Amino acid sequence: MFRHTSHLQFEAKPEKPDAHYARKLQELIGGAYGEMTVTMQYLFQGWNCRMEGKYKDLILDVATEEIGHVEMLATMVARLLEGAPAETTADMVDKDPVVAAIIGGMDPQQAIVSGGGPTLSDSNGVPWNGRYIVASGNLLADFYANVAAEAQGRLQTARLYNMSDDPGVRDMLKFNLARDTAHQNMWLAAIEELQEDGLEGAVAPSALFDEEHSEHAGTIWHLSDGTQGNQGRWASGPTPDGMHEFSYLQETEPLGGKASAPAPDPLLYATSP
Amino acid sequence: MFRHTSHLQFEAKPEKPDAHYARKLQELIGGAYGEMTVTMQYLFQGWNCRMEGKYKDLILDVATEEIGHVEMLATMVARLLEGAPAETTADMVDKDPVVAAIIGGMDPQQAIVSGGGPTLSDSNGVPWNGRYIVASGNLLADFYANVAAEAQGRLQTARLYNMSDDPGVRDMLKFNLARDTAHQNMWLAAIEELQEDGLEGAVAPSALFDEEHSEHAGTIWHLSDGTQGNQGRWASGPTPDGMHEFSYLQETEPLGGKASAPAPDPLLYATSP
Amino acid sequence: MFRHTSHLQFEAKPEKPDAHYARKLQELIGGAYGEMTVTMQYLFQGWNCRMEGKYKDLILDVATEEIGHVEMLATMVARLLEGAPAETTADMVDKDPVVAAIIGGMDPQQAIVSGGGPTLSDSNGVPWNGRYIVASGNLLADFYANVAAEAQGRLQTARLYNMSDDPGVRDMLKFNLARDTAHQNMWLAAIEELQEDGLEGAVAPSALFDEEHSEHAGTIWHLSDGTQGNQGRWASGPTPDGMHEFSYLQETEPLGGKASAPAPDPLLYATSP
Amino acid sequence: MFRHTSHLQFEAKPEKPDAHYARKLQELIGGAYGEMTVTMQYLFQGWNCRMEGKYKDLILDVATEEIGHVEMLATMVARLLEGAPAETTADMVDKDPVVAAIIGGMDPQQAIVSGGGPTLSDSNGVPWNGRYIVASGNLLADFYANVAAEAQGRLQTARLYNMSDDPGVRDMLKFNLARDTAHQNMWLAAIEELQEDGLEGAVAPSALFDEEHSEHAGTIWHLSDGTQGNQGRWASGPTPDGMHEFSYLQETEPLGGKASAPAPDPLLYATSP
Amino acid sequence: MFRHTSHLQFEAKPEKPDAHYARKLQELIGGAYGEMTVTMQYLFQGWNCRMEGKYKDLILDVATEEIGHVEMLATMVARLLEGAPAETTADMVDKDPVVAAIIGGMDPQQAIVSGGGPTLSDSNGVPWNGRYIVASGNLLADFYANVAAEAQGRLQTARLYNMSDDPGVRDMLKFNLARDTAHQNMWLAAIEELQEDGLEGAVAPSALFDEEHSEHAGTIWHLSDGTQGNQGRWASGPTPDGMHEFSYLQETEPLGGKASAPAPDPLLYATSP
Amino acid sequence: MFRHTSHLQFEAKPEKPDAHYARKLQELIGGAYGEMTVTMQYLFQGWNCRMEGKYKDLILDVATEEIGHVEMLATMVARLLEGAPAETTADMVDKDPVVAAIIGGMDPQQAIVSGGGPTLSDSNGVPWNGRYIVASGNLLADFYANVAAEAQGRLQTARLYNMSDDPGVRDMLKFNLARDTAHQNMWLAAIEELQEDGLEGAVAPSALFDEEHSEHAGTIWHLSDGTQGNQGRWASGPTPDGMHEFSYLQETEPLGGKASAPAPDPLLYATSP
Ligand SMILES: [Ca+2]
Ligand SMILES: [Ca+2]
Ligand SMILES: [Ca+2]
Ligand SMILES: [Ca+2]
Ligand SMILES: [Ca+2]
Ligand SMILES: [Ca+2]
Repeated sequence: MFRHTSHLQFEAKPEKPDAHYARKLQELIGGAYGEMTVTMQYLFQGWNCRMEGKYKDLILDVATEEIGHVEMLATMVARLLEGAPAETTADMVDKDPVVAAIIGGMDPQQAIVSGGGPTLSDSNGVPWNGRYIVASGNLLADFYANVAAEAQGRLQTARLYNMSDDPGVRDMLKFNLARDTAHQNMWLAAIEELQEDGLEGAVAPSALFDEEHSEHAGTIWHLSDGTQGNQGRWASGPTPDGMHEFSYLQETEPLGGKASAPAPDPLLYATSP
Repeated sequence: MFRHTSHLQFEAKPEKPDAHYARKLQELIGGAYGEMTVTMQYLFQGWNCRMEGKYKDLILDVATEEIGHVEMLATMVARLLEGAPAETTADMVDKDPVVAAIIGGMDPQQAIVSGGGPTLSDSNGVPWNGRYIVASGNLLADFYANVAAEAQGRLQTARLYNMSDDPGVRDMLKFNLARDTAHQNMWLAAIEELQEDGLEGAVAPSALFDEEHSEHAGTIWHLSDGTQGNQGRWASGPTPDGMHEFSYLQETEPLGGKASAPAPDPLLYATSP
Repeated sequence: MFRHTSHLQFEAKPEKPDAHYARKLQELIGGAYGEMTVTMQYLFQGWNCRMEGKYKDLILDVATEEIGHVEMLATMVARLLEGAPAETTADMVDKDPVVAAIIGGMDPQQAIVSGGGPTLSDSNGVPWNGRYIVASGNLLADFYANVAAEAQGRLQTARLYNMSDDPGVRDMLKFNLARDTAHQNMWLAAIEELQEDGLEGAVAPSALFDEEHSEHAGTIWHLSDGTQGNQGRWASGPTPDGMHEFSYLQETEPLGGKASAPAPDPLLYATSP
Repeated sequence: MFRHTSHLQFEAKPEKPDAHYARKLQELIGGAYGEMTVTMQYLFQGWNCRMEGKYKDLILDVATEEIGHVEMLATMVARLLEGAPAETTADMVDKDPVVAAIIGGMDPQQAIVSGGGPTLSDSNGVPWNGRYIVASGNLLADFYANVAAEAQGRLQTARLYNMSDDPGVRDMLKFNLARDTAHQNMWLAAIEELQEDGLEGAVAPSALFDEEHSEHAGTIWHLSDGTQGNQGRWASGPTPDGMHEFSYLQETEPLGGKASAPAPDPLLYATSP
Repeated sequence: MFRHTSHLQFEAKPEKPDAHYARKLQELIGGAYGEMTVTMQYLFQGWNCRMEGKYKDLILDVATEEIGHVEMLATMVARLLEGAPAETTADMVDKDPVVAAIIGGMDPQQAIVSGGGPTLSDSNGVPWNGRYIVASGNLLADFYANVAAEAQGRLQTARLYNMSDDPGVRDMLKFNLARDTAHQNMWLAAIEELQEDGLEGAVAPSALFDEEHSEHAGTIWHLSDGTQGNQGRWASGPTPDGMHEFSYLQETEPLGGKASAPAPDPLLYATSP
Repeated sequence: MFRHTSHLQFEAKPEKPDAHYARKLQELIGGAYGEMTVTMQYLFQGWNCRMEGKYKDLILDVATEEIGHVEMLATMVARLLEGAPAETTADMVDKDPVVAAIIGGMDPQQAIVSGGGPTLSDSNGVPWNGRYIVASGNLLADFYANVAAEAQGRLQTARLYNMSDDPGVRDMLKFNLARDTAHQNMWLAAIEELQEDGLEGAVAPSALFDEEHSEHAGTIWHLSDGTQGNQGRWASGPTPDGMHEFSYLQETEPLGGKASAPAPDPLLYATSP
């Protein structure tokens, strides 16, 4: 069960409105790597965690924080839209190219649908959806996904940081950047801890290593004509999981037979001789 | 530019058809972590890579391999569907509960739409889409995403491995498992290499550390009532990026003001006093 | 079965083209509360209605009208796009900022895909989809949804009304506003009629009131820290359905046990001790 | 900002697992009218509310409760899946038709993707998305949408109630039914309160009544051939908003000119004479 | 503007219910090539047609018919669901494998969401969407799309025909098959007519033939290792448009330079040396 | 299995960047008729082809070429975005309307998400998805879809050709136009060949002609009020398949009974008397 306070985790006050920027910030609300994704990813991981204790408690701490990040961004977007020229008409556009440009670059749904507020969509207006999240039950696989999400999130926040010179916007983003740093480090630390606790190895899941075709578990296949694919540490030496040796296959040939589809069912009317 | 041989990278021949399993395998074709996702993720990362050389060459080697994985799975699905009772009618269902059950558990579109072949959808029939991939231009952020994708991919393959006892199916999956192991190790090695080459640190992107609010870059906020969230290495000590100290904030209070939306635009007709 | 006349239900002639506005009007064609939604919602409600007579006949009258509303808007969009600078090039953009702004604010698919006509998408270009509609078979539940749809529709139309000063556009929108008023009133009247006919009560569905945990059927839980949530008529007194008493629970505690997930299936490889 | 306790708002313990039912319950998690929809709809309405005080406080109270409803359902789904025959193979299917049927009716992603837990999808596996919610800033329009959502939600819960005879499942659903009753009544009461406070009328929004074509604001057009569409209170008498008179137009003719598209732009290559 | 009669274009009465088949028929309602697609495709083509006269009139005749096809299928689905065991519980499933199988193979939303009626989704429950249609303004390009849609539609109908032995279902499908034959022939005839009228050629659009790189307008590139790609009429001789000569390029080499991405913008933080 | 060379099939070098155009070109990458669609459509058709030989070999030749077309466009988009003013702030917008307009018309995700590269979306930012493709197993039905796709593709390319005057962009598009011409002709020739080989007729599929209600297989129903729908070759004379006679039904009446839904299941709570 959840409780809410109307105070924001951190301040979200722009110095002045900026309708273009309000559109761009939607990426951090409803984009594939926005705050809604980490909120839902962590909530479902917490609920789906099969082991009581420190990992589950940590996941739910962070999940609960993330709902508040959506709240900060939603508040910021509404404030950036204050006084936006939503009702500008064609005549006004013809007279003032700056107004015209601002209108053109706005998210029309922020005005028409939300009345000057945020939507649950990304910066192109595409709605957030539940396939953006993963909660597999395997903590290593999921923590890798969490690092990835926080890394893309921090990268997008950094890009957006340079697209505004508003001190209020930048103040909030400095907090967001720091939280993305903290969370990225945290999941990296949790991955180490999983391994030190003997719960997982480097590769997820820790299973079926003795059943997989191990002769194919360390090779890199040369299939594009770049010449330097064999010059990194992935081309020789022990693998990070400590269980295999890397090698780079310069000459590659298919191992399987011809790709063919079986004779068709006559009642499905495939073209056939 | 690409070239194609009709021979599969590895054999994909089931011993006998299994219509239920053909549906489940769709997850590895068109699921969020299926082979189409890594195919497109790596292709776009390769095309979007801003640095010629070993990383770009590696990415394109692997991207090209992945198209062939989609091909193997597509071929396997068609073969698993051979002789599937697509035309079974209500009468037959009433008479034979096993036939009834098989019909009920099939993906109807594999028969009605594809004539006994695969679709570009997941195991629930939801189409694959372009938001599953990421190619940000930042190799560290993207390689984390690649590790995550290969980890979820190997996990799903391992689960599917236990859902079949067909020797042909299992033989192919043993190859797939091994390739997922190889690729997971490879991206982990590439992350180390990026750091050793001095191109990236542990946290992506390597920027704005001196502008972010650093007092918030190492704290974990206690916001759920679990009591053990402070018992891992994320609760104290140096962060993996070597630049911060972890601390666990047991008592947490909002730092921001009240979340409020600005006065509405009268022409947008929000309810207001 | 349907028949069509090429005459519009009401005139849809702009005085002059306006490419920006053509994009915005897409919201009323293919948005979640656009004319396609009410068209399909009412058609499926009509076909799914389990009672011959006045309700079914009314639903199908209105459903049939709504197809014609899509037609009016589609015609208006094509006319607003006449002469739109679809082929403007970078050179022209550099020379004339107003042209530049107009190009920037256009829906590119109206030119590239539809050749100067409407698409079946909203104002951000997201396609209309079948999950926007509901036809549950329960007329009360559906009529509530119809009131809601007409209310959002009228609200969006009112906002769009202020974004144009073209007399022809406004003339059509004055008709649309009036029809949304009529339909909103009509569904409100139909809700009253359902109750007077003894077919439904105030709450949908009229079932299971004696099985639900009635001690929880009138309480409002205080879970956010606002102090005035208890100051409306929802905080005490009889409920609109006449069957319960409202009360506001100032002190709230969870009634359930701990949220925990069961022991995992070993073959699904969840992380576990 | 939010806080979380691991205790559920109400108990969610099935007496025994039921894999088919775990799939069906997904509708209440990630369906268009499931708990995620009301959670996000109320959160965004609260954040977008332009008037401090009782309405905003109420919305945020309820929004916060709804997150906990998602939590209850997610927990229930995981428990219903305990011991589900995820790894059943074709051989087992051939031998036991009941097992076969259960496998066939399961959501494959609950096993393959979530490892025996819930997904953020509906009962057909289609992901929840952000277009399901509305937060327009106009409280009347939104409260109508809220009544509609709670009505569909209670209807679906009632249907699901009859699809299980598990005492634990039914106990939780009795709570859910009661909350849907409470919330449905609450939004109905809030609509009355808005009108009594003089903030809104019966029709949303309370604007442009003097500009709309008022001669079309009370008519029902006879366009389908049912004969009883004129027999309800919507066919004559005052409208619920008290501002118009209903009338039923038995003979209907289009008021507009021919629907025609303008001459095409030659560079867009429409077929033209 | 449209009008409606409650009589179906053709009878849609199954002899007895069949819940499995009701799910499969959804493909013809809301699938990518179902009746909703042709309805909307033809309506938007008609409204977007830039030439008054026979083509536009024909398109709108057929568009109007197609709405009635959706109606027939929606009616059929509701009737096939009559008495479907929607409320079957786990106990009943354990006792009767045929009931179990039927439950497992049903579309759960037809019961939970629609109360025993159709949805606007395909046979996997994925909602129909507006990107399935095309109305480009170019009649040749669109008529090719129409032939394609009617061909896939007839193919899917033919497959579904073999999945039922209910005389009532088959009677309706015999009508549907015939209409798909008629419409497929009709669009083929309309393509001939466009060419005879001198409005279009064989290739759409009839433009830019003198600007395109004509040396590449007749060649087939050998890029896969099949050996018989050069054995059809596409490998030599005049092209169907009468303007080019086919040739098969056995030895193929890329004509362009290396695929490389430009130097990155430093503020976007791509990994770079 | 596939192989890749880093050389492009044709050059893709703009003379100078153009951020607006980079957005528009997305339509050819991730639009419903872009290069990704034909890539995947042909790959799945090739893998699903039930007849070894010339048709399958041709399909896979062309499929393999198409992957390279995506590559050309992805490369072009990255180059068009070089130096795009992604970091422009509100101040800069206020000062320079041309910059403002360019910012407004850009795809924000090309900067925020992809770091100056392409996405797998269309020109409105909607992600490409797997429902855009068809691979039915019936070659005639699929080749009609291929002609349609190439026709829409060439039409969109022609429109985009006129939206740029950059010699490098135009040079690439001249190649693309030519390939679309070649492929359109090729599929038209393949359709002729199928018929000459006696594998298919004019209408797909070549089945059930003797079971369909043949009296409805040649009629056009007059259902809209246009007067010239009967003036084309579709109104009389033999049908293209040589098996029927066209006729135009001027007076049309429904053939079926009333559309009605069956009595509802009481446990689904439809409103009923
Ligand atoms: Ca965050
Ligand atoms: Ca792979
Ligand atoms: Ca309307
Ligand atoms: Ca609820
Ligand atoms: Ca049809
Ligand atoms: Ca191409």
